[in-house]
Amino acid sequence: MALIVHKYGGTSMGSVERIKNVAKRVAKWHKAGHRMVVVPSAMSGETNRLLGLAKEISAHPDPRELDMIAATGEQVSVGLLALALKAEGLDAVSYAGWQVAVKTDSAFTKARISEIDSERVLKDLDEGKVVVITGFQGVDPNGHITTLGRGGSDTSAVAMAAALGADECLIYTDVDGVYTTDPRVVDDARRLDKITFEEMLEMASLGSKVLQIRSVEFAGKYQVKTRVLSSLTDPLCPLEQEMRSGTLITFEEDDTMEKAVISGIAFQRDEGKITVRGVPDRPGIAYQILGPIADANIDVDMIIQNQSVEGKTDFTFTVGRGEYQRAMEILKTSVQAHVGAAEIVGDPKVSKVSVVGVGMRSHVGIASTAFRTLAEEGINIQMISTSEIKISVLIDEKYMELAVRALHKAFELDQA
Amino acid sequence: MALIVHKYGGTSMGSVERIKNVAKRVAKWHKAGHRMVVVPSAMSGETNRLLGLAKEISAHPDPRELDMIAATGEQVSVGLLALALKAEGLDAVSYAGWQVAVKTDSAFTKARISEIDSERVLKDLDEGKVVVITGFQGVDPNGHITTLGRGGSDTSAVAMAAALGADECLIYTDVDGVYTTDPRVVDDARRLDKITFEEMLEMASLGSKVLQIRSVEFAGKYQVKTRVLSSLTDPLCPLEQEMRSGTLITFEEDDTMEKAVISGIAFQRDEGKITVRGVPDRPGIAYQILGPIADANIDVDMIIQNQSVEGKTDFTFTVGRGEYQRAMEILKTSVQAHVGAAEIVGDPKVSKVSVVGVGMRSHVGIASTAFRTLAEEGINIQMISTSEIKISVLIDEKYMELAVRALHKAFELDQA
Repeated sequence: MALIVHKYGGTSMGSVERIKNVAKRVAKWHKAGHRMVVVPSAMSGETNRLLGLAKEISAHPDPRELDMIAATGEQVSVGLLALALKAEGLDAVSYAGWQVAVKTDSAFTKARISEIDSERVLKDLDEGKVVVITGFQGVDPNGHITTLGRGGSDTSAVAMAAALGADECLIYTDVDGVYTTDPRVVDDARRLDKITFEEMLEMASLGSKVLQIRSVEFAGKYQVKTRVLSSLTDPLCPLEQEMRSGTLITFEEDDTMEKAVISGIAFQRDEGKITVRGVPDRPGIAYQILGPIADANIDVDMIIQNQSVEGKTDFTFTVGRGEYQRAMEILKTSVQAHVGAAEIVGDPKVSKVSVVGVGMRSHVGIASTAFRTLAEEGINIQMISTSEIKISVLIDEKYMELAVRALHKAFELDQA
Repeated sequence: MALIVHKYGGTSMGSVERIKNVAKRVAKWHKAGHRMVVVPSAMSGETNRLLGLAKEISAHPDPRELDMIAATGEQVSVGLLALALKAEGLDAVSYAGWQVAVKTDSAFTKARISEIDSERVLKDLDEGKVVVITGFQGVDPNGHITTLGRGGSDTSAVAMAAALGADECLIYTDVDGVYTTDPRVVDDARRLDKITFEEMLEMASLGSKVLQIRSVEFAGKYQVKTRVLSSLTDPLCPLEQEMRSGTLITFEEDDTMEKAVISGIAFQRDEGKITVRGVPDRPGIAYQILGPIADANIDVDMIIQNQSVEGKTDFTFTVGRGEYQRAMEILKTSVQAHVGAAEIVGDPKVSKVSVVGVGMRSHVGIASTAFRTLAEEGINIQMISTSEIKISVLIDEKYMELAVRALHKAFELDQA
């Protein structure tokens, strides 16, 4: 008898019919003898509807009040799912984050979980109840409702699994697992049976938006066996089959993994590249350039600083395309003169393509294979950034699909 | 500088535009130097939408989960209103019932408030904040969310005013006060400037559905000066004018009131009358008849037991018309044989008309005036029930409007 956490996304909770299907699936697991905790998202469209109302009232809504408003979407979901579970003949009870309690810091709209009380939930499980808990939200030390930011329900589910010492956390979503790359770009992209949490981390942060990145961090940190699988299968399909479907995110590299050098090709299409040219190469210059960008709440992705020539250096970084214009303005108005830069240049139409795999650690020549593949396709590499388990290149947006397909083939990811 | 509680109904909160108007009105009061607490209802239609979802999932939804779901409507409202108040330049903060805390018993969907902590709210008020608190809901001793039942936001507002020692509780609604009777029935029905809470209690319970009856009980018990007034006036109308508008529910009978013998004519159109005939007149018979009705959660209104003849008596009571059929079935299947009644007869098409006024206490002849008026119109009285400040008669439904108009005129309610 295992303790299992299920997480269902907004699409899976998108209608009364679908909620009933979720209940059927959970009931199947419960009847097989498992202790079940379920974390559902808000019904699809609901969070947008609520935030839309807030935006209509205020162009810059107060984050605390936004959380108060947005948190209701998940509260409705847990209540409805508990009702559906009861209709399936199970004993079920729903909790909002503050009732459990899921404790967070006070960073409204992007709070981080600090601690989860498990006592109440474990007691309910001991009594044979299915416990349904709101994702996406918690309560801060002052008793204010907080939310974890978009996709936060994944994090809630994994954190809950960690707090409860669950045997596995199953993330049900509208894709059936993690692929070697986006199947919309490469026809023969293949579903991975397993992936390490580190690889998943790179895949997630690089745009394979199957799981919220913080949920993967949690899975790694607390060694939570997490599985991504489809909510679109027949809810009454055999349990044994369902238990082996999807992609398992593991925290240990086993033998199987050694064989696969590369797990996948991730990409981020909508990037913008900005270069601050001819800045004096002195301590603190990176902070002087990126500080104002961070203050404006703009996420910076790749950062490269060239070797300096005659005491001057070029400083290049990328941002999401939607923030490109704003970042350029900040640099031109508040940074250029201050740091004594020669000029600010940029390109709003670049994409990042990354080769990801823990196998890289023990295999040489991955980088050169990647670079040769791109060269053979005539694709110019604008920036390179590497980590232990990934190589990312920045290229002209128009070559993105071509690069992904070529790399997918070069690393034989189409072959099981 | 007074402490004022405002309550706004679902219609007043029905759209972004209306919520902004509420904020403008509250801002006007705040700028005049008052300490403001606001209790808004869910946006109109929202509670029905939520309960509709629940009903789609389960024909007999669990009340605890219903409360979990329904309570979100008000939570959205407080967040939106706090945003709108901030947009007006005020410092505002919203709270759900459990955050205040509004403590209730555990009777889900019809909980009663047991205690309200005022510390947190008073602290915010001291800091110059406008405090926005969810109506309709609270938290039980086990930390479960409860709701107070339909119209419960009125009760929340009055209870909050009592807990805070507020100077006045203003209930903004889509009517501009309490009338001598329903203006849809009697053209020259007149708005009352004042009414005692006891009269209001009779008016409310008799179908003048301006205020939830429990809110009036609270107002009486804790002597909260409560005013019912329109939310449809210009939100920026002069404060002095607004402070004198609507109907004030007072807890003391002042001189003005002595003059008005009767305050109004209330009525309840949809009643059903049931008579259990020929039951042995022995102790416990009323309980044996009404016990099973109460167990079925059917509210009984008027109850009359006739003088017994030869040890047998007739027992008559009224129920809401919607419950008439069910009540008849219960009596025929579970009660008739058990109590040895001769027969069960009924009439599902009766209405109750009531003459209400504290002046009745010190004036004689009110009943005879009422009975004479009805007789002159040829209206047969089927049942009579009286209290210190009201006389109710049950009549054929088809005469209801005629009876109300005739009594309204007979007691000169059309004259200021």
